Amino acid sequence: MINITTNKVWANSGDSHIMEPLDLFQSLPEDIRELMPRSVKDPSGAFETIYIDGQEFRRELPQPKPGDEPKKVTINARPVDSGEDDFIHRVISGNDPAHRLKDLDDEGVWGEVIYPSLGIWTFNIRTPRVVKEGSRVMNEFALDFQKHSPRFVCAASIPLLGIDDAVAEVRRSSDVGFHCGFLPTKPPVGRPEWNDEEWDPMWAAFAETGMVIGFHIGTEPHDPTARTGVYYRGRGGAVLNYVETTYGGQRAITQVIACGALDRHPELKVLVSEGGATWGPFIADRMDEGYRQHGAAVRPNLSKLPSQYLYDQVYASFQHDSSAPAANWAMGWTNVLWGSDYPHFEGTFGHTQKTLHELFDGVDAEVSQRIRIGAFQELFPHVPDPPVS
Amino acid sequence: MINITTNKVWANSGDSHIMEPLDLFQSLPEDIRELMPRSVKDPSGAFETIYIDGQEFRRELPQPKPGDEPKKVTINARPVDSGEDDFIHRVISGNDPAHRLKDLDDEGVWGEVIYPSLGIWTFNIRTPRVVKEGSRVMNEFALDFQKHSPRFVCAASIPLLGIDDAVAEVRRSSDVGFHCGFLPTKPPVGRPEWNDEEWDPMWAAFAETGMVIGFHIGTEPHDPTARTGVYYRGRGGAVLNYVETTYGGQRAITQVIACGALDRHPELKVLVSEGGATWGPFIADRMDEGYRQHGAAVRPNLSKLPSQYLYDQVYASFQHDSSAPAANWAMGWTNVLWGSDYPHFEGTFGHTQKTLHELFDGVDAEVSQRIRIGAFQELFPHVPDPPVS
Repeated sequence: MINITTNKVWANSGDSHIMEPLDLFQSLPEDIRELMPRSVKDPSGAFETIYIDGQEFRRELPQPKPGDEPKKVTINARPVDSGEDDFIHRVISGNDPAHRLKDLDDEGVWGEVIYPSLGIWTFNIRTPRVVKEGSRVMNEFALDFQKHSPRFVCAASIPLLGIDDAVAEVRRSSDVGFHCGFLPTKPPVGRPEWNDEEWDPMWAAFAETGMVIGFHIGTEPHDPTARTGVYYRGRGGAVLNYVETTYGGQRAITQVIACGALDRHPELKVLVSEGGATWGPFIADRMDEGYRQHGAAVRPNLSKLPSQYLYDQVYASFQHDSSAPAANWAMGWTNVLWGSDYPHFEGTFGHTQKTLHELFDGVDAEVSQRIRIGAFQELFPHVPDPPVS
Repeated sequence: MINITTNKVWANSGDSHIMEPLDLFQSLPEDIRELMPRSVKDPSGAFETIYIDGQEFRRELPQPKPGDEPKKVTINARPVDSGEDDFIHRVISGNDPAHRLKDLDDEGVWGEVIYPSLGIWTFNIRTPRVVKEGSRVMNEFALDFQKHSPRFVCAASIPLLGIDDAVAEVRRSSDVGFHCGFLPTKPPVGRPEWNDEEWDPMWAAFAETGMVIGFHIGTEPHDPTARTGVYYRGRGGAVLNYVETTYGGQRAITQVIACGALDRHPELKVLVSEGGATWGPFIADRMDEGYRQHGAAVRPNLSKLPSQYLYDQVYASFQHDSSAPAANWAMGWTNVLWGSDYPHFEGTFGHTQKTLHELFDGVDAEVSQRIRIGAFQELFPHVPDPPVS
């Protein structure tokens, strides 16, 4: 029996979330505001219409089967012992700074990288000015939130429809106090992949400002007519869709390494949040094999083997993965860090102490300290130390 | 300095290849033979026309730049120290049983799972009878080759356009002496994914016959108008394309586990060849997180956690991956096995002893034995023991 009151394990989180308020874009001029994403549910309940940047998509809504109780919300991607309304409660708590800090103290979570939530929708916006102004407003909200505690490390949204806008927002957000910039694992529709020359000035801006790049998994632009994150249906669909989300983070890392961005900027640090961690040594080996065995086709040549950039400059957060600590102590990737994913259902809220004990009891103290505290502190040295366990 | 003559390390290979002869389909009736894949190069050298099952695709061929030497073959996915003609020599050697055994003895490779090569093209055939007759001819060739040595474990091609044909060929190939059936990581165009009910009788046939399922990576059906395996161009393309090939094997395993096939058939054994091995513990953890945290959406429920099926019934081969042995000794996945990928460039031909020493010198003897010999023997107990090192 674990005694969590007398033996609280503290950890920083490389992956947490906040939900922007519904009236966030009220301050924008009307011509931009009306292009921002919004959903209007048809009175019949059969479909919703989504408006984004002059585009209009009709999306069917799940219909109750005969005999079903009416549902207030329809989040079915949750544990079996969790009610359908739980997520709403979590979001309300998480968006109140005082309540959030109480939750963190209860759970034993200290510092947090906090990602925005509206990011995915904005990837379907096609007008650079709309994305630029929208990102600015999201970042003002995030910065206000960050000011409530030195434990909050909010990630700035970066407008990606124009490289000049992206570079300017990396620099501006660093100037105003951000330490991390959020990037999707795949650029918005119509933009080149992360290995393209187009992005070079943005990598340079991240490197020069010391801003950490935060790739959050599951952020590929998606078809607005489909339900987000649904790649598979039928048997095993829930597990298949969940597993599928991780590959995008691995692709993004392979791209920034293979194109030479991390070679040109050895000070650049990249975090992949919520994608697990044991993939790191695997992708490192795979990149090396491709780099050597297909060497005649490799462009550009790199100063070191691809694996070295991953081991030196790439960090990754996991929640429950029992194999993740061994990626550090047995495979030598010391940039594995833990994450809570608060307040999402994929995370540890409500059972964080149980998870941390299961992961780290019996693990070498130095390894445990590195995964829970040290790797995060290397990325964000301005965050104060957690209490001593 | 490694002394490979006095200290030869032997290993079985979970991944090897053979190339079918060009006149393989001569024995088929003309109406079927003319539907088999063939390529006709235009005299201009600018394009080739590919004929498959009544479909006709024109594909541009890479053009020499001004000043380039004329090339006999255009395989650029090779190490920098390897000539462009090397692959041809390797294929000629590999297809001659006596020469192949000499190569294996030189390299220290004992038993081998040997995959067919024509498989990828056949996935674009749309006529069930053509695939059925073509698979039969490929399997006659493979069976003849297998008879040359108990060290050869050839994988039978399974026709996948009709479930009855697939089941019949699993049973027939087991009857005539095959121990492994080759499946692509994704079913042919137009067929449902591996998690679909459609495939249940085939999993049952594999389980009942004791045939091992061999998923070989990089075998997704591809657009015949594009170059095989080219997902990315530009900077880092060679490494990106190589890394991309591994995800299909992970998806196939997630599908057969999440749909309950391995739960219903605990005796079924599945091998993923050439995709690396460290992904196993990672995907196991990720499946468990999805299964628990999205539990309310999970169908079907499984008797055990998804990870358990992977640890118990799934095997995976790697070539050079330095992290792979630790997937066994530190993460507890004892079904990691080595593979040579002979005669392909991604493999270890020409430097097998160097690779085996680098991988296993200093590794616990039991772990080394399991990865080199034991895991393979568990899949194919009929293959005799290798010489003592």
